[in-house]
Amino acid sequence: MDELGIGLIGTGFMGRAHALAFRSAGAVFELPVRLHLAALADADAQRGEHCAGAWGFAQAHRDWQDLIADPRVNLVAITTPNHLHFPMAMAALAAGKAVYCEKPLAVSVEQARQMHHAAQAAGVVTRVGYNYQHNPVIAQARDMIGNGELGQLVSFQGEFSEDFMADPDAPWSWRCEPQHAGGALADLGSHLLAMARFLMGPVQAVCADTQTVHLQRPTEAGSQERRAIAVDDQAHALLRFANGARGTLSSSWIKHGYKNHLSFEISGTLGTLAYDQERLNELRLYRVGQKGFQRLLAGPALPGYAAFSPAPGHQLGYNELKTLEVHELIMALCGQGRDGTDFAEAWEVERLAAAIRTAAAEQRWVAL
Amino acid sequence: MDELGIGLIGTGFMGRAHALAFRSAGAVFELPVRLHLAALADADAQRGEHCAGAWGFAQAHRDWQDLIADPRVNLVAITTPNHLHFPMAMAALAAGKAVYCEKPLAVSVEQARQMHHAAQAAGVVTRVGYNYQHNPVIAQARDMIGNGELGQLVSFQGEFSEDFMADPDAPWSWRCEPQHAGGALADLGSHLLAMARFLMGPVQAVCADTQTVHLQRPTEAGSQERRAIAVDDQAHALLRFANGARGTLSSSWIKHGYKNHLSFEISGTLGTLAYDQERLNELRLYRVGQKGFQRLLAGPALPGYAAFSPAPGHQLGYNELKTLEVHELIMALCGQGRDGTDFAEAWEVERLAAAIRTAAAEQRWVAL
Amino acid sequence: MDELGIGLIGTGFMGRAHALAFRSAGAVFELPVRLHLAALADADAQRGEHCAGAWGFAQAHRDWQDLIADPRVNLVAITTPNHLHFPMAMAALAAGKAVYCEKPLAVSVEQARQMHHAAQAAGVVTRVGYNYQHNPVIAQARDMIGNGELGQLVSFQGEFSEDFMADPDAPWSWRCEPQHAGGALADLGSHLLAMARFLMGPVQAVCADTQTVHLQRPTEAGSQERRAIAVDDQAHALLRFANGARGTLSSSWIKHGYKNHLSFEISGTLGTLAYDQERLNELRLYRVGQKGFQRLLAGPALPGYAAFSPAPGHQLGYNELKTLEVHELIMALCGQGRDGTDFAEAWEVERLAAAIRTAAAEQRWVAL
Amino acid sequence: MDELGIGLIGTGFMGRAHALAFRSAGAVFELPVRLHLAALADADAQRGEHCAGAWGFAQAHRDWQDLIADPRVNLVAITTPNHLHFPMAMAALAAGKAVYCEKPLAVSVEQARQMHHAAQAAGVVTRVGYNYQHNPVIAQARDMIGNGELGQLVSFQGEFSEDFMADPDAPWSWRCEPQHAGGALADLGSHLLAMARFLMGPVQAVCADTQTVHLQRPTEAGSQERRAIAVDDQAHALLRFANGARGTLSSSWIKHGYKNHLSFEISGTLGTLAYDQERLNELRLYRVGQKGFQRLLAGPALPGYAAFSPAPGHQLGYNELKTLEVHELIMALCGQGRDGTDFAEAWEVERLAAAIRTAAAEQRWVAL
Repeated sequence: MDELGIGLIGTGFMGRAHALAFRSAGAVFELPVRLHLAALADADAQRGEHCAGAWGFAQAHRDWQDLIADPRVNLVAITTPNHLHFPMAMAALAAGKAVYCEKPLAVSVEQARQMHHAAQAAGVVTRVGYNYQHNPVIAQARDMIGNGELGQLVSFQGEFSEDFMADPDAPWSWRCEPQHAGGALADLGSHLLAMARFLMGPVQAVCADTQTVHLQRPTEAGSQERRAIAVDDQAHALLRFANGARGTLSSSWIKHGYKNHLSFEISGTLGTLAYDQERLNELRLYRVGQKGFQRLLAGPALPGYAAFSPAPGHQLGYNELKTLEVHELIMALCGQGRDGTDFAEAWEVERLAAAIRTAAAEQRWVAL
Repeated sequence: MDELGIGLIGTGFMGRAHALAFRSAGAVFELPVRLHLAALADADAQRGEHCAGAWGFAQAHRDWQDLIADPRVNLVAITTPNHLHFPMAMAALAAGKAVYCEKPLAVSVEQARQMHHAAQAAGVVTRVGYNYQHNPVIAQARDMIGNGELGQLVSFQGEFSEDFMADPDAPWSWRCEPQHAGGALADLGSHLLAMARFLMGPVQAVCADTQTVHLQRPTEAGSQERRAIAVDDQAHALLRFANGARGTLSSSWIKHGYKNHLSFEISGTLGTLAYDQERLNELRLYRVGQKGFQRLLAGPALPGYAAFSPAPGHQLGYNELKTLEVHELIMALCGQGRDGTDFAEAWEVERLAAAIRTAAAEQRWVAL
Repeated sequence: MDELGIGLIGTGFMGRAHALAFRSAGAVFELPVRLHLAALADADAQRGEHCAGAWGFAQAHRDWQDLIADPRVNLVAITTPNHLHFPMAMAALAAGKAVYCEKPLAVSVEQARQMHHAAQAAGVVTRVGYNYQHNPVIAQARDMIGNGELGQLVSFQGEFSEDFMADPDAPWSWRCEPQHAGGALADLGSHLLAMARFLMGPVQAVCADTQTVHLQRPTEAGSQERRAIAVDDQAHALLRFANGARGTLSSSWIKHGYKNHLSFEISGTLGTLAYDQERLNELRLYRVGQKGFQRLLAGPALPGYAAFSPAPGHQLGYNELKTLEVHELIMALCGQGRDGTDFAEAWEVERLAAAIRTAAAEQRWVAL
Repeated sequence: MDELGIGLIGTGFMGRAHALAFRSAGAVFELPVRLHLAALADADAQRGEHCAGAWGFAQAHRDWQDLIADPRVNLVAITTPNHLHFPMAMAALAAGKAVYCEKPLAVSVEQARQMHHAAQAAGVVTRVGYNYQHNPVIAQARDMIGNGELGQLVSFQGEFSEDFMADPDAPWSWRCEPQHAGGALADLGSHLLAMARFLMGPVQAVCADTQTVHLQRPTEAGSQERRAIAVDDQAHALLRFANGARGTLSSSWIKHGYKNHLSFEISGTLGTLAYDQERLNELRLYRVGQKGFQRLLAGPALPGYAAFSPAPGHQLGYNELKTLEVHELIMALCGQGRDGTDFAEAWEVERLAAAIRTAAAEQRWVAL
């Protein structure tokens, strides 16, 4: 394969993030294949044309089915609202195309299970956009854990909090609908669950508590009319990992002051490691024998960083994590991939989130 | 009452901390009564004499019963190992003396209940040494919450972690015995539970998970002989507060890198407040309308601080929190007290800790 | 003008950073003109071809003069070693092309003066790559200052320290040559001087002290042979600004622990503002009436940020500052520019750096 | 000597700080001598009596001369306004008493010189209250420097900023008078100069810039009448140390947001050390081979800390630095002292401050 044809469905924020990543990947990395931005799809034909022009795609389709059928498209990237992931991914898999789907994989565990099985059957490369895992400092964290630098893992404290729904007058949106995978746990917490599994491995049992604090929200910004809300504003959980470690998880979209606070502390018998996505180029590390926590700034010694800058302290941004994700995906498509988050793994994340919801609903421990 | 006679039982680290606080209180504050360091008690007569001399106590008793019986002693301060709190406090209450007991109140809920009832019956002032509550920034936090500055409380994330038992070769001590109120939850977590109740009010239900990571420890430092350990190295819990807030608690004495990490984040509908005992002169505060978290340094506008320094940023130390605790106690003895942590409140803390232990043992939610 | 032809000279780290920025600009921003990556130039023809392919340039020239002469090139971007900026920029100006030159503008004040005058005579748009100024939080800082939110400016403390030359065995390179604008002051300090002028305005007088700590360095990595070093390892200065403010400047490339520590504190009669390039998405701000410093995270309310992400806390990286710089440049080329750092301004930065060198050499205050 | 008689002149904030320190020293430390709080002096007899009672002094003198003459007084502690240090210390020295004088030593270099010579002639122990040096983390810093752990010292960046005069309506006080050692440099900067000498050794040359920003202030709080101000609001300087290191100093009492910001960074060929008095229980340390800065919390391994607490992270307060200072003083009086800041050293600090004033006034480098 000399050239890889990219087809992008969706032109919102995440659509553009994908486009930027595909545009940059070839200049940042030495890729084993040339990328061809073959097509994008948007139901709004005018917007589709405009974005294709601005973002460098060869063609715009109005109908996503046409994009999937397009023979120049080898890889289908899906960045549409959550409830569309299932039909689009299933169609792409049926067409034998590789699929790169935004998170969450689906809006139900059952959908996720079917997608996972369809991907297995199709035998194609799949990836789901848990892009925070591609941060070089997270790769470093995983390597350190894998190398035993923290010893036997003992605890995990994780939190993903933001405050974009903290205002009780923040209006209803599809994110407030369970059938669209709404709520703090699904919207934010799933990133944290994926991260927990990425770094700590499987979870064996959970107990949890979820809560809707603002029971009604305006139907739209400024409206007097209010609509009942059925999804969680915050979720808390206890986690038991298969490796024996224990821990807690918190996820909230109403915690004032936080903007992107995906954070964790992982402790083992030889040290402690801490991370906060609001400072995504840093780790805090303590190892036995040190006098105190070290602040580690990202630098070219870390996996992936050097492709962006030869000097430490020059920092990567959120969008560049997407470029790293695309790179990993392309390497996988060329048979040189590492262990990316594929549909099988994303299904496990959905199972875990579902177990947390069950534990909260039934107020009991749930085994996985 | 012109003069208040102080009797101190115990001359270890906490005994000296009490002595320092009683020595300083009269110079730091304008007290309504003169303090007389009447007596201390130590089973080691020589040490008792030495400490009495160095710390300014008029007399040393070898037998703590003699100290309680001493007519010049109005207030009995108990700083002995945990299992002695019960007999000493019960005797002091029986003698009609005020009691100032180090935390934890007792080594079982039943003991704590009896002490609480005995204090009620005696009608004397009692206090338990949860000195972190007397930190001016904690008083500020409580005032802010009470004034509604955070709005309706929504969440609490609390952690008290240290690493003094992180080394698997840290030897057995009485802190490793359940019957001495040992383990991370009792030793550290109880401070956090007291703090949670102080700031958030009562807890209605808990679910929890506790774990002994290092199942054996040397019988003493350097020994090859090992002894089975029955107490928790770490505890995690979900909390439901009576005010509707939800949250998590973690307590560990094996979390590398932390030395005094009693920390919490309290979030409400109008803001978020955060604290870490490793920087005890600071709060982090975000309120609706701010652009980001503020760092608040302690200063003379806060309750108690001005007695130590007229200037902000000059910082109080751990021992000075004890002086503030002694001040509050003396004011209470003079009928001018605020709501200190008395035996009734300390018993509630013990009940809460016991509920967490039950929840962990039975792997289910426990209501209080 | 429908299309703007970009010609890029140099394919090193900065060349690629330019390429990435030009590739991304059209997808990140709605540009008033289409960008055409017309040509790049590299003396190594094979590397030129390779980069042109990977980065999406239509053609590669071996000879930079051919690139300047190329009629499809409207804008010449210069990313070669410092001593080549002069001949290349002068040639481009002579050809009536717009010029985008990496910092420093030149290797002597005299060169810089000529380049400034040539640009004036040519009447074209010029820009110099002081990309840190395009950081949205820096734009915010400048706006705040301009709006008087800090009151009358009183002080500036600035530092740019890194440690890439801290090892005495870090070898000689062209950065160690005065005639290549080497040394900590020229290499790092010039960024800080540009920033100081950008935020504070002109400097009227300086006094300074420079020092070469490691007087000899290996001729190349690992070599036993050593070469005398004539440039400064660290520079310190006192600054008097035209607006009345006073301050200090430090620049070092041997200060252990720092990787990209361009930092400053600006204080006025109404507040204080602080920044550290090692956390480039944050400001620390104190304004009269606040209780403490606020941490401001970059977000979509800031100039330029929203083009990258609709959500706060998602962070931009170093390379994305370059995209912002390219955007500003293109807007200027389309007649919609703000006050970018052109050759006139870059010449002022060089004059200021030269005054600091004179002050240090003659151990006296020097007026500008 | 079995007993050391303490005489304290002054009952303001610093007087009480001394009293607290003398009261605590014997309980915190095992002292080689018993302390007797023999007498205090206050011109207000009623206040003198009250303080003597509350602070435990045996007697109150109305006349400080009587206190100096009191045969039970061996050590005279001077905590009065700056202009009284000279007559009181000279009288105490003339009487052969040891002297413990608050900083600054005097209100002129000439006075300081005379006091230094008088102390030499008297042959008694003297100490000046630069208490920040007695912070265990500062002792650690000094030890590290002395042990060569930072290598050859290269740079010093020091700042002492507060904001208590930032409000232009903060009224005139004696601190605004040059003849009372007023101004930011004398009031705050002298602490920093003492610290610089304590850690870095002598300064050989300085260049400086001082500025009065608010040229008039109300005669008293709320007054419409304004008075011209002759002292500096901020001072900046370049420093050349005898050991070859170079650096900067800033001192301001109008820098918004800072409350006690005595901070420094010391860099050597093997590492960098940083400190901020607003977090007085911490150091930041980077040494060659580390991945990033470590945060070191004070703990019992540091000189002096263990006397206050057996556990790390329990933090000392400002007043406890005074107890450490008193301890060092008493050990010196018992012939077991280390190198405290005596009159000879305090005179050097005054000389250095005077050189900075001269350098600023004459806008030139001044050698010491």
